[in-house]
Amino acid sequence: MSILIKNGYCIDGFKEGYFDLLIEGNRIKKIGKIDKDVDSVIDAKDCLVMPAFCNAHTHLAMSLFRGMADDLELMEWLEKHIFPAEARYVNPETVYKCSKLSMLEAIRSGASCFFDMYFFEEEVVKAALDVGMRGVVGEGVVDFKTPSCGSPKEAIEKTKLLKGEFENSGLIRVSYAPHSTYTLSLETLKLVADSLDKEDIVHIHINESKREIELVKSQKGKKPVEVLKEVGLLGEHTYMAHCVETDNDDIELIKDAQAKVINVPQSNLKLASGIAPIQRMLDRGIDVFIGTDGSASNNNLDIIEEIRVASLVQKVKFNEKALKAKDAFRMLVNFNGLFDAGRLEEGKLADLVIIKLDGLEATPIYNPYSFVVYALNSRDVRDVIINGRVILRNGEFVGVDEEKIKFEVKELAKGLGGL
Amino acid sequence: MSILIKNGYCIDGFKEGYFDLLIEGNRIKKIGKIDKDVDSVIDAKDCLVMPAFCNAHTHLAMSLFRGMADDLELMEWLEKHIFPAEARYVNPETVYKCSKLSMLEAIRSGASCFFDMYFFEEEVVKAALDVGMRGVVGEGVVDFKTPSCGSPKEAIEKTKLLKGEFENSGLIRVSYAPHSTYTLSLETLKLVADSLDKEDIVHIHINESKREIELVKSQKGKKPVEVLKEVGLLGEHTYMAHCVETDNDDIELIKDAQAKVINVPQSNLKLASGIAPIQRMLDRGIDVFIGTDGSASNNNLDIIEEIRVASLVQKVKFNEKALKAKDAFRMLVNFNGLFDAGRLEEGKLADLVIIKLDGLEATPIYNPYSFVVYALNSRDVRDVIINGRVILRNGEFVGVDEEKIKFEVKELAKGLGGL
Repeated sequence: MSILIKNGYCIDGFKEGYFDLLIEGNRIKKIGKIDKDVDSVIDAKDCLVMPAFCNAHTHLAMSLFRGMADDLELMEWLEKHIFPAEARYVNPETVYKCSKLSMLEAIRSGASCFFDMYFFEEEVVKAALDVGMRGVVGEGVVDFKTPSCGSPKEAIEKTKLLKGEFENSGLIRVSYAPHSTYTLSLETLKLVADSLDKEDIVHIHINESKREIELVKSQKGKKPVEVLKEVGLLGEHTYMAHCVETDNDDIELIKDAQAKVINVPQSNLKLASGIAPIQRMLDRGIDVFIGTDGSASNNNLDIIEEIRVASLVQKVKFNEKALKAKDAFRMLVNFNGLFDAGRLEEGKLADLVIIKLDGLEATPIYNPYSFVVYALNSRDVRDVIINGRVILRNGEFVGVDEEKIKFEVKELAKGLGGL
Repeated sequence: MSILIKNGYCIDGFKEGYFDLLIEGNRIKKIGKIDKDVDSVIDAKDCLVMPAFCNAHTHLAMSLFRGMADDLELMEWLEKHIFPAEARYVNPETVYKCSKLSMLEAIRSGASCFFDMYFFEEEVVKAALDVGMRGVVGEGVVDFKTPSCGSPKEAIEKTKLLKGEFENSGLIRVSYAPHSTYTLSLETLKLVADSLDKEDIVHIHINESKREIELVKSQKGKKPVEVLKEVGLLGEHTYMAHCVETDNDDIELIKDAQAKVINVPQSNLKLASGIAPIQRMLDRGIDVFIGTDGSASNNNLDIIEEIRVASLVQKVKFNEKALKAKDAFRMLVNFNGLFDAGRLEEGKLADLVIIKLDGLEATPIYNPYSFVVYALNSRDVRDVIINGRVILRNGEFVGVDEEKIKFEVKELAKGLGGL
């Protein structure tokens, strides 16, 4: 299958200009002025063409709980609402259907890739393959029984099985997903570390709130990042979501380890956790990603909204020049260490998004990065190509029954009091 | 003209339920179960019906400068970019065309009303009447020559003329718009105060930044709110945009005067001004509105985005329970003292918005206020009715040539380097 994208204005955070893109199979074959017989031509006149976005931290299936319990203290929210609902309603069926819904939501905002941590991750894989979305899945490891696993050992074993079946299969990668340093004992954290092969990805929540840090210090005598280092989990394939309460010592440890940070700003605001010092991390050369979190604490998976808020709150934390539009854009298309995507270069994976420039909010445009970060609405996302396949075309999903999946999730939600 | 809206789920921040709405002329005539021959029936099945939103602080014509200069320090932004561009490009033609574009943008996000402060406000009135949008216009009063007026006296005289012509004409009201206490001398502020009739609206920027407060203290020996009180401009018809750096003494002065506060959160973040203590003001019974600011510092007029960010940043400033969804919603539909709208009640002005519930982000819904504030995207705004007239129907403008106005603004922007 070959696709030629013509006449678009192309940007990728490093270079810009009018050029055509030739996709062959699942990769960008050629960039430039191209005239060639292909299977399909996409006219991107009056559009921006860019790498698709990576939503690097979410719990897809939690769309089932979207807006079920808001405006509550974190512990009340978790213990009185989320944990009981999860125990009762999280099963293979809900995970499959609700994850699928969330994938469509993420794609509609221009994402080609998710980075998930939840339960029954084999169902997330199934949904992703059905939709045609790229993703990194991680079966949640905690020190108590989860809806899918009786023990942390079982979750680790399951991760190995998933890895054997899907790692490097194309669309899917598998991560180890120890939940956090406050929900896991040192023994379990070490068990995860001992399971790792050299290239294995670790996805974990770190430094989400002051309370977490105090708790980990009281449990383990060290701060979360120090605990990670001690147990051998702080490495270049470690992706740490949140990192709100992250002091300069933490930042140096992260930098030295070449570990990765995932900024999750709207969830951090909504749960009153704080604003992560992202600009300071970027200044130290740390690699930063952007994620929405699950839609129980966001309450949507719109990654365009997310990068805007990310950029805005850095300015109020530091100054007007913090997290400038182009730097924010680079976070949005960051796939480093996950997949060979995120740049408009020959040989890269063909994950692309085409954005219409005919909206009122696109009038006028002086700088395309400023437009994407500060003004764009996800309704302007016209086409999304993932792994060389067109998944969204003129705002409609290809090969996915959107109405059916919405109906199914609504039916599931009725059991929980959904309207 | 009579319109019957049937089958929608209605919410207004105070009551909810399935009921029909009968509009006769420009007002809501009846609410309940209604069967009646009317000129037009709108089926709102699977939709939310609510009062339209009020975008209570903007500079509409600044869409011309959207994204022209971002990520800059406030003074550099103003003095090197905005002021020179305004001197060169702000004229009756640009104000008319760019204000009209902004009105469409605001309506598309569900707003029926704007509260504007800029230059050549007679052109803003013309555009509003052409579009059919409700608004409060204010010719900017400053102590230097503006593109439209040679002196503050001239701007005040013009306000009186506009008032004579349009105040209480239906869609339009006229405010006095002294820019701020730092750009105006005490003499000019008193001149404005002396011009006021009892019901006259005052629209002013107050407490936007720490620097402003220091500047006013050094100029006038008092803080901005104290200055307003001293000159007789702090009253129940005073609408103060920003109020970021607002201490408890200011809050008591505002409360005692029954003055109004307009929250402008995204602009305050983007220009690194801070987060206004909105929850503290609400706790003291102060009446708070929401506005986007102009799109040179936002960079769009999406009031749905704005209320979401407003609610999220209050939580990080105070706690998870700050600015809850229903309280945020009430800010969104606040028209107090401006127009007799904002509630689903018989006799109120018929400014309504109908929102589709078929989006992925609307799946599922447990609480409609939570949905609107935390998950809704403006693409789901289906219909907007202003003053009893359908302005947006199935996402398309009625009686307005959207393509023409976008083309015209793009042409204007080419002179400034627009793409």
